[in-house]
Amino acid sequence: MPEFMDVHRNMVGITQEALRAAHDADLAIQGDESVDFKSAWADPESGLVYCLSEAPSADAVRRIHERAGHPADEVHPVPIRV
Amino acid sequence: MPEFMDVHRNMVGITQEALRAAHDADLAIQGDESVDFKSAWADPESGLVYCLSEAPSADAVRRIHERAGHPADEVHPVPIRV
Repeated sequence: MPEFMDVHRNMVGITQEALRAAHDADLAIQGDESVDFKSAWADPESGLVYCLSEAPSADAVRRIHERAGHPADEVHPVPIRV
Repeated sequence: MPEFMDVHRNMVGITQEALRAAHDADLAIQGDESVDFKSAWADPESGLVYCLSEAPSADAVRRIHERAGHPADEVHPVPIRV
């Protein structure tokens, strides 16, 4: 399954609890699109959040994040990994 | 040890072999700054590369990437993770 890195901006001040709640909202519906959100990393100062997932397409990632209430600003396939 | 996500742009066309070589160049000298580069993900189409590391500071990450020949465009602390 392809991997994707997506980026959320404007999340300044995000907390551990808020990131957990957002991630849980993704997990609750990700099966509808065969997406597997694996990890997310947040910088409360810059407001950047990075999410790593496996999914059939970038659009599937976008749809889950949108339905969960936090649309991604960018979704990038990352077919190369070390 | 704090975690950091750094971003390289303008890497359009990057290959698995090139990412491996760049990562190996980091690994060869990372001990000088107590940095641990854990994973990197690349999108050859957009030219974006994301690197996850543990390090004492963002500057330590910057110095290793610079000395290895591929300065980062952004280095963000990511103190929050799920």
